[in-house]
Amino acid sequence: MKRFLLPAALLAVALPAAAQQASPPAVPAYVAALRDQALRDDHAWNITEGLTTEVGPRLAGTEAEARARNWAVAKLRTMGFANVRVDTFDMPVWTRGAESAAIVAPFPQPLAIAALGNSASTGPQGITGEVVGFDNLAALEAAPDALVRGKIVFVSHAMTRTQDGSSYGFFGGARRQGPSIASRKGAIGVVIRSIGTDYHRNPHTGVQSFAAGVRPIPAGALSIPDAEQLQRVLQRGRLVRMRLTLVSQTSRGGSGNVIAEVPGRDPRAAPVLVGCHLDSWDLGTGAVDDAAGCGIVTAAAKRIMDAGRPLRPIRVLWFGAEEVGLFGGLDYQKRYGALPHHAIAESDFGAGRVWNVDSKLGKDREAEARLLQAAVAPLGIVGGGLDEAGGSDIGPMIAAGVPAVELSQDGTDYFDLHHTPDDTLDKVDREALRQNVAAWTAMLAVLSGGIEPGPRRSRRR
Amino acid sequence: MKRFLLPAALLAVALPAAAQQASPPAVPAYVAALRDQALRDDHAWNITEGLTTEVGPRLAGTEAEARARNWAVAKLRTMGFANVRVDTFDMPVWTRGAESAAIVAPFPQPLAIAALGNSASTGPQGITGEVVGFDNLAALEAAPDALVRGKIVFVSHAMTRTQDGSSYGFFGGARRQGPSIASRKGAIGVVIRSIGTDYHRNPHTGVQSFAAGVRPIPAGALSIPDAEQLQRVLQRGRLVRMRLTLVSQTSRGGSGNVIAEVPGRDPRAAPVLVGCHLDSWDLGTGAVDDAAGCGIVTAAAKRIMDAGRPLRPIRVLWFGAEEVGLFGGLDYQKRYGALPHHAIAESDFGAGRVWNVDSKLGKDREAEARLLQAAVAPLGIVGGGLDEAGGSDIGPMIAAGVPAVELSQDGTDYFDLHHTPDDTLDKVDREALRQNVAAWTAMLAVLSGGIEPGPRRSRRR
Repeated sequence: MKRFLLPAALLAVALPAAAQQASPPAVPAYVAALRDQALRDDHAWNITEGLTTEVGPRLAGTEAEARARNWAVAKLRTMGFANVRVDTFDMPVWTRGAESAAIVAPFPQPLAIAALGNSASTGPQGITGEVVGFDNLAALEAAPDALVRGKIVFVSHAMTRTQDGSSYGFFGGARRQGPSIASRKGAIGVVIRSIGTDYHRNPHTGVQSFAAGVRPIPAGALSIPDAEQLQRVLQRGRLVRMRLTLVSQTSRGGSGNVIAEVPGRDPRAAPVLVGCHLDSWDLGTGAVDDAAGCGIVTAAAKRIMDAGRPLRPIRVLWFGAEEVGLFGGLDYQKRYGALPHHAIAESDFGAGRVWNVDSKLGKDREAEARLLQAAVAPLGIVGGGLDEAGGSDIGPMIAAGVPAVELSQDGTDYFDLHHTPDDTLDKVDREALRQNVAAWTAMLAVLSGGIEPGPRRSRRR
Repeated sequence: MKRFLLPAALLAVALPAAAQQASPPAVPAYVAALRDQALRDDHAWNITEGLTTEVGPRLAGTEAEARARNWAVAKLRTMGFANVRVDTFDMPVWTRGAESAAIVAPFPQPLAIAALGNSASTGPQGITGEVVGFDNLAALEAAPDALVRGKIVFVSHAMTRTQDGSSYGFFGGARRQGPSIASRKGAIGVVIRSIGTDYHRNPHTGVQSFAAGVRPIPAGALSIPDAEQLQRVLQRGRLVRMRLTLVSQTSRGGSGNVIAEVPGRDPRAAPVLVGCHLDSWDLGTGAVDDAAGCGIVTAAAKRIMDAGRPLRPIRVLWFGAEEVGLFGGLDYQKRYGALPHHAIAESDFGAGRVWNVDSKLGKDREAEARLLQAAVAPLGIVGGGLDEAGGSDIGPMIAAGVPAVELSQDGTDYFDLHHTPDDTLDKVDREALRQNVAAWTAMLAVLSGGIEPGPRRSRRR
């Protein structure tokens, strides 16, 4: 029986970078074969379609997320994974009620709005106030309190589109810090231009947390057409009054991480962890954020499992409660962060094609990192940095030094959909999904340390 | 003083079609100049921006449409038009209240919905029922009553995209006849896949009227992603139950046509009528349907007025209450249909570029029709038929034999926006708008029979 093992030299010898770049390492045939077979994958689509159809929206801490966990456990067991289980944890839960907004003067008309996470509730009767507009967060910060006190603040900062999503960090400040700054200055409410790049009447929600000591106020996001409309109305120079109804409730609830495994031949070997998040925002069905991610990483692990037994165990982790504060990632880190991981990686940037691979495996594993680059290069993936990697739930673990890989997806269109009602299955391109699965399969084939073929195992339990 | 008059020969002599096609008529220099100057037009944008910003949604028969009429009268007077007035009429008024839909079993989740015009009200408590799905209207028609009775009917007919919008006729049947057919068979409610071509969570509303003797039932349109979701849920083969809340009210109300004129040198000459409709559906701000149309035709008339005095009067007509049953068009026909019109034309197919010109001016005016074709050809406009023309409000008058012209816009994307919340100003392309104004200006320069320059007149009143 032929054994598909990685050449030991590739894993042990760190050649100088220049030499490596001149001559990329040879990719073992079984890695290339698994990668190319994955371009016909249907597992990822089936998971994405199933979760978004049979559960739909699954806000962290709610009954819907609990249904999603049940769905996930059943699905992962049916697929044959081992040790399928849920690590549960408690968390604060914020849920949305009725919400609406309208300009009441000088030009009465409704506006499309969604509350931001942890918004204070206006109560069903709503609030009405004068609107004071700011072009960006810096202008709000610079404003005298007297200009803001007793008013509804509007921040119209317009996000720009980037392939890697890096603009989210800069423009997202209006959502993350805007409400706290407005409250400190005495605002009675705050509405922001959605942190997004589309032109549809679908507001982008997202989490914000009032800073310590700051009084929570109602905080919402206008859709981008509505934000531009409000800006035009303000530009007329007349007093603008808005009615704002953002009803919400807060409570305590439970969430959990769903874990499944592909056992390794060496039971003491450190696992390779591949993750995604199970929860979604409540407005859409969480197709690109992040059912597709769960589909991709799970399909890749399944394909390795079906090919035989890897040296190292593969751990598939569908994190709970990512959107509202990375609660699942923090729970995992608390439980398992001190144990060794061979590598960790997460898919949580939509369903676009992978265009770059970064890694941070450590200086002594440069050959492994170079092999990884070579293995995914035929998929049109650029070999990126060897000392950087990121991820949402796994971010704290990466910061703590756990070796990590990042397969970066093209996110040029990601913020058209992110956290909106429009995040639905129809936005997922099946061919792009397959390219992702191929990249993750190749990565797992390399990182799991060689696969020993065997009879297809059934681990249903 | 030079007179910009059409050569008499061009208006009087009908050359054989083949000869005309071989040698298009020479376009008078002042027509070409007015056309080309209109490519820098700002009037159309200012009207479109102003109406959508300062009024916003303006459903027929409501207080919002009345505000829109006031806005229109003030705007048309400020622009210098003569005889600005409103012809009022009474009409039935249907208005939307709270609305929502949800799958309650087997996979509980909300669905994005909007009631269709003249839907019955479910009352605030809503209705719940089993869903029975049909792929198209023919399948619903063929279904035995027993399959439908007591259930909520879902028709999932998927509209296809066409440049000229002709698919609206075929696919629109699900909206126009679907509710009546479902009611006849005993359905307690009906939801259709939106008559549209986009993939956003924005339902397409639109008018439907229950046939005589048919009991009105609640009738709504799901957004296209939601319709596909419901279809996937139904395909699981389990019993699907839906909760449907579509609150609405009906009453009597008033609407009106706003009329303005550019006087002609010959006060007894039949006018050239250019129209659009002022009302909009309530979900968006009616930017492409039809503020842009009002901007285009009014800008063209304004440009002629500013150039001097045409031979024939130009009548600008912003029809009221088009969306809900062509009430404005019918009122105009009743009042003025028996009087001669030199030609009528309407802009009501969005804000895309004009690509074709059809006309139906009569056999004795073929030279004028050919000149019109030649005048707009440099704008990339195909010379179409000489025995056909269409329009929404003016449709009944065309059917009655009034000479008409149709400048056809590219509507490939029109049904992405039509009757949705997404019909907002950001969808209007300023350059395409200018190309429209240039086409309408050239058309008016030809049809109004020659312009005599004069001091710029102020007709404010």
